[in-house]
Amino acid sequence: MPKISLKGQQMPESPIRKLVPYSEIAKKKGHKVYHLNIGQPDIKTPEVALNAVKNADISVLEYSHSAGFESYRTKLSAYYKSHGLPIEVADIIITTGGSEALLFAMGSTMDSGDEIIIPEPFYANYNGFSTASGVKVVPVISTIDEGFALPPIAAFEKLITPKTKAILICNPGNPTGYLYSKEEIMQLAEIVKKHDLFLIADEVYREFIYDENEKHFSVMNVPGLEEHAIMIDSVSKRYSMCGARIGCIVSKNKEVMATAMKFAQARLSPPTYAQIASEAALETPQSYFNDVISEYKDRRDTLIAELQKIDGVKVATPKGAFYCIAQLPVKNADDFAQWLLESYDNNGETVMVAPAAGFYSTPGVGLNEVRIAYVLKKEDLVRSVAILKEALKVYNS
Amino acid sequence: MPKISLKGQQMPESPIRKLVPYSEIAKKKGHKVYHLNIGQPDIKTPEVALNAVKNADISVLEYSHSAGFESYRTKLSAYYKSHGLPIEVADIIITTGGSEALLFAMGSTMDSGDEIIIPEPFYANYNGFSTASGVKVVPVISTIDEGFALPPIAAFEKLITPKTKAILICNPGNPTGYLYSKEEIMQLAEIVKKHDLFLIADEVYREFIYDENEKHFSVMNVPGLEEHAIMIDSVSKRYSMCGARIGCIVSKNKEVMATAMKFAQARLSPPTYAQIASEAALETPQSYFNDVISEYKDRRDTLIAELQKIDGVKVATPKGAFYCIAQLPVKNADDFAQWLLESYDNNGETVMVAPAAGFYSTPGVGLNEVRIAYVLKKEDLVRSVAILKEALKVYNS
Repeated sequence: MPKISLKGQQMPESPIRKLVPYSEIAKKKGHKVYHLNIGQPDIKTPEVALNAVKNADISVLEYSHSAGFESYRTKLSAYYKSHGLPIEVADIIITTGGSEALLFAMGSTMDSGDEIIIPEPFYANYNGFSTASGVKVVPVISTIDEGFALPPIAAFEKLITPKTKAILICNPGNPTGYLYSKEEIMQLAEIVKKHDLFLIADEVYREFIYDENEKHFSVMNVPGLEEHAIMIDSVSKRYSMCGARIGCIVSKNKEVMATAMKFAQARLSPPTYAQIASEAALETPQSYFNDVISEYKDRRDTLIAELQKIDGVKVATPKGAFYCIAQLPVKNADDFAQWLLESYDNNGETVMVAPAAGFYSTPGVGLNEVRIAYVLKKEDLVRSVAILKEALKVYNS
Repeated sequence: MPKISLKGQQMPESPIRKLVPYSEIAKKKGHKVYHLNIGQPDIKTPEVALNAVKNADISVLEYSHSAGFESYRTKLSAYYKSHGLPIEVADIIITTGGSEALLFAMGSTMDSGDEIIIPEPFYANYNGFSTASGVKVVPVISTIDEGFALPPIAAFEKLITPKTKAILICNPGNPTGYLYSKEEIMQLAEIVKKHDLFLIADEVYREFIYDENEKHFSVMNVPGLEEHAIMIDSVSKRYSMCGARIGCIVSKNKEVMATAMKFAQARLSPPTYAQIASEAALETPQSYFNDVISEYKDRRDTLIAELQKIDGVKVATPKGAFYCIAQLPVKNADDFAQWLLESYDNNGETVMVAPAAGFYSTPGVGLNEVRIAYVLKKEDLVRSVAILKEALKVYNS
């Protein structure tokens, strides 16, 4: 029997995948499972996007341009400019989700064996994209005690080798909800310029900032960083359109864009229907975002307040995105998460959380932490945390 | 300035891309350009697919399962069985186009530096996927004089090294239109079993066979090949839905599928709208296909008959797909193709063809060949070949 690749063996499983059979067991028992484990928002997709697809006059569902509709890229450039990001049409290639944008960014800048430094905990699929690209992830640890702030630049410098090609950040962060300050971004800009590295910034949660005195600062806003900065974006969260699978890779570095374009041409084009929806979504009224942000802010405040009432739980208040990392009074959050599904219920209800170890690359770190997504209604979040509180008592006794 | 990757430098450009500026020049002059160079059919997408999207009741455009809708996979398995292919639901992962299926197949079976043997001329993007995956393409030449039949098995055996992991075929072939016989597939099955290789078959043109006495024979139909066979499929051509970007990877090899699933999870899910269209497309009435096949057969017969009337043109009659390779009485088809756009017109009209050298991996082969796609109406094909005939006279004088 022919063997699968080493790369394939090394591809990580989704950190929540092994829990899925247990959630199915819980559901088969008739238990209700509150899903705190996934980033699928319950927020409605803007009608203007859905209607554009309904009303599209298509007789042949054709390939689009490999870089995506020119009309969409033109409007997207205008959208970015209206948000203070100096991004031209030529700086944009539309991709199949932020996922493909990351693959293009890695493929265009890194060869097999090259290294990328990523502050951990980080979005678990960065491991998958790195493995698929033959790239080695070098983690630099950020801690819950520091609220997941940027690790000291000295910690990055210690890790830079001749193989290092890029630093990757997620801002605001999944799974931490941390929002990097302008000063932190400027520190990163200095170090990538000093060592001639790329700074890849996953900014798909840019619009999800919950405090009026906080402002997102993009890598595209740093003067002099044009040749180093690569921005990853997506419509998935902004318009609650995760199923569209539309994102983009953005850079002022012409070599990077010409190279990414070759990857784009090989796969022909991003999906046409989803581009129609994404282009129309740019017409979404500001009131939609105001409502969404206010809803998430409410959810965040509720979740954090409720979590902080539990003895032994530590949580860093997220400033953006819709996740937080919570430290629980357990030794092994993996075991606890499984137990919640397999052996526990509170009046026929339980919760599913994502053990945070899967978001760290350093073995043994984050074992007592979980990621909680606040994508559920407020009352469900309150109930979920109440279940968690009771469950912790039972589990620890 | 940070450098792009070696991989990125090696990524091939689309073989027709360099001609695009010249076609724009022709169009700016007001010339009509007949596009014989692209595989975008003009055939209408089945209404049942388009209507399913129009009528979809979506309020939140959610992620789907990473392997694709279960309902779609179930119906797809039934579709395959009704076409004589013993494919179960568990053997299928829905992908973003056949492109992603190929990337998953390569990633799951090959590491950086591994080799894949492909009969040339082959679909030019195989080079791109191989480069992106760090895999080395080893071509084995098939010739127009043999009608692009499978090269002798001895030619494959000579090329097998410890690095060889797979043989990749396209059946029926893009760009050749050649349909491998059952005997040829059985020969390939023997050699991959003997050397413990994978046999990856791109069968996206399976339904496009134009002679009643010819029948497609799939790698999924070979008894004993279960652990070796990986089939690539797509809805793009079958339903004229290139813009959907839906395909699938199919295998009975459970390790391959578990590994491909990890790649699928990393990118979250295939596009939701396109899956709705693809699932509904399975309800397309047989009359649609009868009409399409009869239309393409007509086009093929017309194109080949017209081409054969030109002195010095040699063409192998394609048995399937909708391309053919034509040898022209020119030294350099690249130069001729550019000249057609830049310097020639016949009553304000000209044609764009794809120089075939881009479909060969061996340098210097196929320099006097072009790929012609017969995706235009019959009268346009007749006119195109008439232009080609006159152009050849002028070019060669």
